[in-house]
Amino acid sequence: MQAICQQLVQRIARSVSANIQSVRVISTTITVFKTVPGWGAKRPKFYLRGEIMDPAIEEKLAPFRQAVKEQGDLVRSLKEQNAPDIDLQRAVAELKKRKNILEDKELELSPKDGFDRGKLEDLLKQKFFYDQSFAIYGGVNGFYDFGPMGCAVKANLLQAWRNFFVLEENLLEVDTAMLTPEAVLKASGHVDRFQDYMVKDLKNGECFRADHLIENTLEKMLTDKKVPDETKEDIRKILPTIDNMNKHEMGETLKKFNIKSPVTGNDISDPIDFNLMFATAIGPTGTLKGYLRPETAQGIFVNFKRLLEFNGGKLPFGGAQIGSAFRNEISPRSGLIRVREFTMAEIEYFVDPHEKDTFPKFDLVRDLKVALFSGTLQMDGKGPQEKTLGQAVADGTIANESLAYFLGRIYLFLVKVGIDTKKFRFRQHLPNEMAHYACDCWDAELKTSYGWIECVGCADRSCYDLTQHSKATGQKLVAERKLAEPKNINVVECKVNKGVIGKVFKTEAKLISEHLSGLASEEVDVIDKTLQGKGEAEISIKGQLFTLKPDMLSVSRFEKTIHVEEFTPSVIEPSFGIGRVMYSLFEHNFKTREGDEQRTYLALPPIIAPYKCSVLPLSNNAELLPFISQISRDLLNFDISHKVDSSSGSIGRRYARTDAISIPYGITVDFDTLKEPNSATLRERDTMKQIRAPISELAEIVRDLAQQRRTWDNILSTYPVFEQQESTK
Amino acid sequence: MQAICQQLVQRIARSVSANIQSVRVISTTITVFKTVPGWGAKRPKFYLRGEIMDPAIEEKLAPFRQAVKEQGDLVRSLKEQNAPDIDLQRAVAELKKRKNILEDKELELSPKDGFDRGKLEDLLKQKFFYDQSFAIYGGVNGFYDFGPMGCAVKANLLQAWRNFFVLEENLLEVDTAMLTPEAVLKASGHVDRFQDYMVKDLKNGECFRADHLIENTLEKMLTDKKVPDETKEDIRKILPTIDNMNKHEMGETLKKFNIKSPVTGNDISDPIDFNLMFATAIGPTGTLKGYLRPETAQGIFVNFKRLLEFNGGKLPFGGAQIGSAFRNEISPRSGLIRVREFTMAEIEYFVDPHEKDTFPKFDLVRDLKVALFSGTLQMDGKGPQEKTLGQAVADGTIANESLAYFLGRIYLFLVKVGIDTKKFRFRQHLPNEMAHYACDCWDAELKTSYGWIECVGCADRSCYDLTQHSKATGQKLVAERKLAEPKNINVVECKVNKGVIGKVFKTEAKLISEHLSGLASEEVDVIDKTLQGKGEAEISIKGQLFTLKPDMLSVSRFEKTIHVEEFTPSVIEPSFGIGRVMYSLFEHNFKTREGDEQRTYLALPPIIAPYKCSVLPLSNNAELLPFISQISRDLLNFDISHKVDSSSGSIGRRYARTDAISIPYGITVDFDTLKEPNSATLRERDTMKQIRAPISELAEIVRDLAQQRRTWDNILSTYPVFEQQESTK
Repeated sequence: MQAICQQLVQRIARSVSANIQSVRVISTTITVFKTVPGWGAKRPKFYLRGEIMDPAIEEKLAPFRQAVKEQGDLVRSLKEQNAPDIDLQRAVAELKKRKNILEDKELELSPKDGFDRGKLEDLLKQKFFYDQSFAIYGGVNGFYDFGPMGCAVKANLLQAWRNFFVLEENLLEVDTAMLTPEAVLKASGHVDRFQDYMVKDLKNGECFRADHLIENTLEKMLTDKKVPDETKEDIRKILPTIDNMNKHEMGETLKKFNIKSPVTGNDISDPIDFNLMFATAIGPTGTLKGYLRPETAQGIFVNFKRLLEFNGGKLPFGGAQIGSAFRNEISPRSGLIRVREFTMAEIEYFVDPHEKDTFPKFDLVRDLKVALFSGTLQMDGKGPQEKTLGQAVADGTIANESLAYFLGRIYLFLVKVGIDTKKFRFRQHLPNEMAHYACDCWDAELKTSYGWIECVGCADRSCYDLTQHSKATGQKLVAERKLAEPKNINVVECKVNKGVIGKVFKTEAKLISEHLSGLASEEVDVIDKTLQGKGEAEISIKGQLFTLKPDMLSVSRFEKTIHVEEFTPSVIEPSFGIGRVMYSLFEHNFKTREGDEQRTYLALPPIIAPYKCSVLPLSNNAELLPFISQISRDLLNFDISHKVDSSSGSIGRRYARTDAISIPYGITVDFDTLKEPNSATLRERDTMKQIRAPISELAEIVRDLAQQRRTWDNILSTYPVFEQQESTK
Repeated sequence: MQAICQQLVQRIARSVSANIQSVRVISTTITVFKTVPGWGAKRPKFYLRGEIMDPAIEEKLAPFRQAVKEQGDLVRSLKEQNAPDIDLQRAVAELKKRKNILEDKELELSPKDGFDRGKLEDLLKQKFFYDQSFAIYGGVNGFYDFGPMGCAVKANLLQAWRNFFVLEENLLEVDTAMLTPEAVLKASGHVDRFQDYMVKDLKNGECFRADHLIENTLEKMLTDKKVPDETKEDIRKILPTIDNMNKHEMGETLKKFNIKSPVTGNDISDPIDFNLMFATAIGPTGTLKGYLRPETAQGIFVNFKRLLEFNGGKLPFGGAQIGSAFRNEISPRSGLIRVREFTMAEIEYFVDPHEKDTFPKFDLVRDLKVALFSGTLQMDGKGPQEKTLGQAVADGTIANESLAYFLGRIYLFLVKVGIDTKKFRFRQHLPNEMAHYACDCWDAELKTSYGWIECVGCADRSCYDLTQHSKATGQKLVAERKLAEPKNINVVECKVNKGVIGKVFKTEAKLISEHLSGLASEEVDVIDKTLQGKGEAEISIKGQLFTLKPDMLSVSRFEKTIHVEEFTPSVIEPSFGIGRVMYSLFEHNFKTREGDEQRTYLALPPIIAPYKCSVLPLSNNAELLPFISQISRDLLNFDISHKVDSSSGSIGRRYARTDAISIPYGITVDFDTLKEPNSATLRERDTMKQIRAPISELAEIVRDLAQQRRTWDNILSTYPVFEQQESTK
């Protein structure tokens, strides 16, 4: 297993630099934890890169790109020379710093698209898409409540996800407990390593993330005229190393620069380990410690055996889970992007590691072109490159077809739900960004006004999780593979002489008999040889020692033909941060009507829009109302969410209102409706074009449009276009 | 507000006994907490009653019914006499005891339906509908993981709920934080009162619910021959009072009978308050205490203002939430029925208390006949009575049309998703079972092998919650009502002389000015009169005293015409325990094929079934496979979940396997399929009848059937029936 993982790590390394012959990627000094949206790498950065720049801008960026490349080359050469870890870390830290500077510069120079976050936030708040939780109690940071519009968008997004992944990939969806006993999260590594360092104000107890505090304070000192030049020189050397500091080094740095609380100026504590999970006690005794799960993935791993059995023992198959996860951020920020309670949708796709290089359905995405920002490109100071997934696997950029297939599916899903492809890229983790057990890892990053944010992670996690849970529980978490041809193996079996054992060991006889019966061939062999050599053999069961004599067991040796062998599956893990995808959708689909700056709207795709349709009477005339009820009933009959707006505003104003909450279609009942056969107009939000159709057909038309089974163009060419001027304010 | 609530309480009281003139229902001595499924009343009982019994059985039950009635009459007469609380409580406790005995007897005598819980549980476990969480780690009580089948049933049930309630009632759905700061749950009453009493084994720390321990020990003593008769006499007097014991009385009883741990025989502690919420700390300082919410309802209440605004300030409207809730049970049991983490779906329907007697849509359910088990019937030792909701409101059995409307909707929903109407009843809470603020409360109880279990609660909670949150936050949580005719009121307004106040109070001037400007008419009036009388007036702001002089303000008095008045809305709360409904669905739909005891299956309605359709090739012949792929693609195109089973079992065995997981429709591709126009058979699970239809039409047929838009009878009459004998094993 490890050999396979090592092999893949080497392949990635090759993709990073064709010159590197060996590379120490698996190392205990790499502390970066699994990155998935919503909890992210230990110290996440927002990347702003990958735009197609014009030549004038490229000229300005050239020196920054060069600076990255030089450092990238240094890192490569250090790796080649097998330089000491500490040197390599310093060099990588400096590389990241330079990458960040380049990214900031790119952002600064890239053409502005006129997006106004304040305006979007006003709309989202005013129409109650979401807002701070417990606001009447003063609010609590890092928690958001979704209102009717946000809740509907979320439900639609999850339904689309379920159809796209669970149905189409035939995944086995589970819904598992959020409260998780400590043992499970100890095995997964979260109890020991899912943490940040923090410091406390010694007087008022206020907490700060140690790395943020050091970075912010030192950067401020750099701009302070009173700070001597030699100190500034020192700071410049230290700044790039913060990301890799351990607790002791952080403590020393805090002391060296006499760093205080930035709020009160009070003294602060030494750095403290702060685990990011919410802890509680399960049951009344208070002795069973539990945590709110920090990800939904572990619920799939602990059910692996049941799922494998459900699938008839066959690989490959995928488990999936949609659910809440929790992370007790020290200082949550950036709205929906970094919160303490969030929804994830995760897939754990189990494959035979011997077979993951080829994936049966890969042909479906082989020719898909996506923006790939590989480790090599990042180290060269370049931007992402468009490439088909087939090419990327062939040239070693992506580790294997299994991983590449899911990258393709992630991309197609995001496009389907309304992500702007121009604001999309896959960024590969640099070897030292990856969790130490991962073979290859890519993030789908979406560009927003906060920068490039990781919204979906997709990692090849090899056999790490199943192995960990197996070690912790003693349960086999394996699948079976048919051997190409049957194999003969030597079996050494032990038959217990229960009479003798019972007489000698009395109450412990059962324990010993069971232990002996459960031994592997090699273990029986050792005991047998010891008995033959020394005339007795000692065995240890649960810390207790027992001495065996030859008459207590008989050993038989024979050859056996086996047709299958056991192995621990590898797992590919696409992991969606639903809140982040939602926020990006809002930004990517926030539009302004041409010629009317004030008239903003959300152009969400119909499958995601909170309501599918509005139903509006042209006026308050009583004759129109029965048709409104009729249409509303027809829509309900197809389970189509819709909004009736009979308020007295002009029809133009009401259209603007429905546009603001992204309603894609609007049915208007007017005085022509009264004529038989009764008909009404249907308006599309983005084109603002209208057609006229019989009332009896409208619900079905809207259903087909909303489920993306029919296009608006098709409707336009089927029904007469309605040409009445839309009245505006 | 209180007057209205009092009025309704009296109406319920009237329905309980037409003779009672006044009744003290609102009393602080009533400690029974809000009952909703999943957390229940403080000490829930399972009721087994309401069967239509045959005369021979009725004869046997008569003395038990009589015993209940006698005690019911005693309770009524004590209430009439305004007897001391303690006497009334004792009498009601005895009444409940007698009701339980009657119910046990009814269960014992009612005809057995041959249901075998063991068999159902085997099926649910084997097909991974659900199973214990963290089983490979030894499992944790009270937590269940839903596997692919259970997860799909749950998702379908929630989708059906959303369509039936959120869409059809136009509810405003929210999705709010689960982690809740203490202040919110302090206001709602959960921090102080959501608790049980427990005792601990003094040696090993094992915990027991105090009431359960006393009850079980004393009942055991009653059957013990060594226990003297006089002690037994004493126990018989004490047993009925356990439900109403306070902590001190429980402690005394434990000592009196020298009760020990039933497991170890060790001494136990005195009773301890045990709050049933899971506690944690939010944020890094550890000072902000939070809990996992024990219900989803509070998330709606704290968003009331935003929702009212979203609804344009108009009543009535309903908020809704589907989500997880948590309850740290001392000893969870009964499978899915009493768990520590569960899903709820709750509605808070806000109405003007002046208008809740009539509900606009009540006509839709007025003539619906349902089994109502009113307080009166319970006190008379009778069973439930079938009655239309219209009648029940007219004769005062149900408090108002608003409440009755939602009872009707709950019933219709449960029937739609597959609940057996013969195992359904609405049971009214007796006045002292209700939360002290509720005006009327009914539980939809479903009969299972665990007895009658409350699956949906529906309470008129009056204005309790909004009032509590308003008091705790100082925020107005009110709506406005248009006055029938404008009203003139006297206004006393105060204009601050900022110059003088600024000069005298300096830095505190702003505070004082704002305070004065915010005063109500009556308060200004008092200050004005004091100034005129004494020449100065003292005011207190945040504990600080200030002395005002006449030159600091001028007072104007005038008459004003107002058109609206503010009020706190009442709320009707239907509250669904999703796990309980699911479990009841499994029991109610567990069937055995006639003539084949071993062939069990689940007859869930198509909208709830985990897969809608199976796709089976009659044999492994390669010519059939392209049709299987084609049909699968067609089904996916309509987002229809389905299962392809190309395994080699006989078609009969494969049908049995799909029946077991409740797949309602099966498409079989056979050799006739090869002939043009290509066709296949479609089989229905419950009737096992088959038709033959063109392949091109099958996906649409299944979609319409699965969404209950077309009936199987309709399909049978449209397509030729396929008559091949279904082969069995």
